[in-house]
Amino acid sequence: MKPISALGLKKQLLSGEASKWDLALRSLATIDKFDSEIRAFVCTTKREDAIVLAENSNGPLAGIPIAIKDIFDTTDLPTEYGSQIYSKWKPASDAAMIALIRRAGGYVLGKTVTSEFAYMSPTETRNPADLKRTAGGSSSGSAAAVAAGMVPLAIGTQTGGSTIRPASFCGVAGYKPTFGMFPTVGMKCFSWSLDTVGLFAATVSDLSWFAEALIQRPLAAKNSKERQFIIGVPSENPWQVHSASADMAINAACSAIEAAGGIVKKIKFPSWMAELLELHRLVQGYEATQALAYEFDLFGDRLSPMLSDYLTAAGLITAAQYDRARNRVQVTKERAAELFAEIDVLLMPSALDEAPVGFSSTGDPLYNKAWTLMGTPCVNVPGLTGVTGAPMGVQIIAAPWADQDCLDAACFVENAIKRKFGDLYDRIGS
Amino acid sequence: MKPISALGLKKQLLSGEASKWDLALRSLATIDKFDSEIRAFVCTTKREDAIVLAENSNGPLAGIPIAIKDIFDTTDLPTEYGSQIYSKWKPASDAAMIALIRRAGGYVLGKTVTSEFAYMSPTETRNPADLKRTAGGSSSGSAAAVAAGMVPLAIGTQTGGSTIRPASFCGVAGYKPTFGMFPTVGMKCFSWSLDTVGLFAATVSDLSWFAEALIQRPLAAKNSKERQFIIGVPSENPWQVHSASADMAINAACSAIEAAGGIVKKIKFPSWMAELLELHRLVQGYEATQALAYEFDLFGDRLSPMLSDYLTAAGLITAAQYDRARNRVQVTKERAAELFAEIDVLLMPSALDEAPVGFSSTGDPLYNKAWTLMGTPCVNVPGLTGVTGAPMGVQIIAAPWADQDCLDAACFVENAIKRKFGDLYDRIGS
Repeated sequence: MKPISALGLKKQLLSGEASKWDLALRSLATIDKFDSEIRAFVCTTKREDAIVLAENSNGPLAGIPIAIKDIFDTTDLPTEYGSQIYSKWKPASDAAMIALIRRAGGYVLGKTVTSEFAYMSPTETRNPADLKRTAGGSSSGSAAAVAAGMVPLAIGTQTGGSTIRPASFCGVAGYKPTFGMFPTVGMKCFSWSLDTVGLFAATVSDLSWFAEALIQRPLAAKNSKERQFIIGVPSENPWQVHSASADMAINAACSAIEAAGGIVKKIKFPSWMAELLELHRLVQGYEATQALAYEFDLFGDRLSPMLSDYLTAAGLITAAQYDRARNRVQVTKERAAELFAEIDVLLMPSALDEAPVGFSSTGDPLYNKAWTLMGTPCVNVPGLTGVTGAPMGVQIIAAPWADQDCLDAACFVENAIKRKFGDLYDRIGS
Repeated sequence: MKPISALGLKKQLLSGEASKWDLALRSLATIDKFDSEIRAFVCTTKREDAIVLAENSNGPLAGIPIAIKDIFDTTDLPTEYGSQIYSKWKPASDAAMIALIRRAGGYVLGKTVTSEFAYMSPTETRNPADLKRTAGGSSSGSAAAVAAGMVPLAIGTQTGGSTIRPASFCGVAGYKPTFGMFPTVGMKCFSWSLDTVGLFAATVSDLSWFAEALIQRPLAAKNSKERQFIIGVPSENPWQVHSASADMAINAACSAIEAAGGIVKKIKFPSWMAELLELHRLVQGYEATQALAYEFDLFGDRLSPMLSDYLTAAGLITAAQYDRARNRVQVTKERAAELFAEIDVLLMPSALDEAPVGFSSTGDPLYNKAWTLMGTPCVNVPGLTGVTGAPMGVQIIAAPWADQDCLDAACFVENAIKRKFGDLYDRIGS
């Protein structure tokens, strides 16, 4: 089980080494072989349909199989949002992201496992990098499907830390774009101020190429050798002391960046960063009680206890608390530029630690929530490990709408790590 | 056909003059009587179901029948978004607004006619104030249902001018809350930066009471006699010269306000207001091509020529144009406070003119788009007429999240008009 580069597959298609048909069948065969153990998929497109879709696909993503988190509506495949309330549900329309995949010539090979309504309830998905560990959440299936080489590209979402965290845990590249850049139309809403589409790929280069093809704006990493990135590393963060694995990954990344000619600049977070987690809690909770009002009020007994308890507690958040939080977020967003005044991007651990062992938790999104709330782009750079040898990612964070800078810098860091610590991409299959 | 006050019905329920059952049957009888001509409803709840819903309703809105625009998902009634693509469609969940109605003890008596996907294509709905005229759009059914006394309360939406304009045309109160205050979850998306829930009622008092019951925040107009509102009237606007009807309504409103002790202050719009219409065009167009990508790409032949042409043209808007527009909107929103520095609220015509005669257009949202884009609350105050005697509303506009001020001031203006020009509410039925 190794992640597969989408750009590598694209080359195979262009050279005639593989046909679109081959790639579809290869993906389905890998899923057949491993998914009874990994449990990344809820359902897959039928073999005969996949062949037709692959053969008829045209455009930049033509022939590249893509998996999509089962929190997006699809007309061809059931859509269950990870909840028994929606067992076998068939929506009337495809989510906008499906239409964008189709416009770019891609096609959907299957739907991946999601935590119930993309919240925090654990899924059955195994981490392909270490089967004893969770793949994270809530986009566990999309991260694992890419990590296991079942598909080269997958789509997930992030409301707290649901893209960057599982990408870190599974050792794949993950990208949470600026809030509002990718359409969430036809995605089950949890919190309209926070819900963000997320992308997964084997490497940052694959990821940025995928993103550009989907949304038709310049995002593909320029891989410029001339640009010397100034990468800010907070000397401390107001939320929690780093774990040994997080420290190890950040130190490794910094030494690789410096060895590759990048500049690491220690920075100090402004004091207002401290309140962001509480603001995230208030905004998400208040909105979730409205977004899931139908399910909570009429089918509360079919929600997990974790989600039901969460919504009950969140129901106590008042409009006045929400308004104050929303106001503070607005002020914070207006001050986001401060963070990037003397640096190009930020570097932080993608997750608190390596993926937890066992399946009772999807891990902690502590290092992700503030950025989701601020709407900044974040990219998980894979290739490093924590103290026990499991994947431990670092995330590159940029100012809102500076997504291309974010992907460029992440690509630089990925290459720097590869150069310093040996070829991560021995791990990439083909 | 007269609008009916929801607060009046509430009094009848409290005094025992009417039962919840009575109100449901009365509404259905009015619909039976007039809707073959008005065409406000797509479908209604069955008589026996309505009685059960009415009898079982508890909470502030208990027993008050409510109609909802057929752009919101409902599980009990078909949801067609005004498009043949969704003929007889039954969603798996109710929109969040339906859940909020239920939480407040209200119930849905029927779905009202909407323009196709809440865009601009004309509907068959007749204006109850003058059957030769359009009821406006896109919330034509909701405005007409309230104007004809079929229901006391209705829900619509506004992306350009789809609530304030039909309210003005039909002579009822309409409220577009601050962007993001009411949930759009389960509402068919046209433009995620603009789509806003809208409310309709017979009077501003009914409207603000309805809003407060639904969203559980202080919104009910305080009707304070002590407060002296400073109401700004732009001496000119950068978009278009007023029609004779618009001038007549503004002059009448100003004289009523001054007679009631309010202060009318002439103001001059800052120069940046001029670009708002173009920014609205870019933001709405770019987002609509993604929001309706599924329908446009796979069922383009089942879209109206008007919408199909619109989406084709909007497809030429580039990400760079969108980004620039989005950025400008952000700057504009940060400067919104400037507009209200020396006034409490703004007063402007709600629509360019009286409702057009005939059914080939839903009228022009020219005076609404800038406020939808800025996310400000707007309230249509009914009770005045244009040069030919058809309804002509004035809108009160406040700073974002100053919704209670907006409703308070609108209530003051409504009462001032009533005092000066005789009892509008002879027109209100019971």
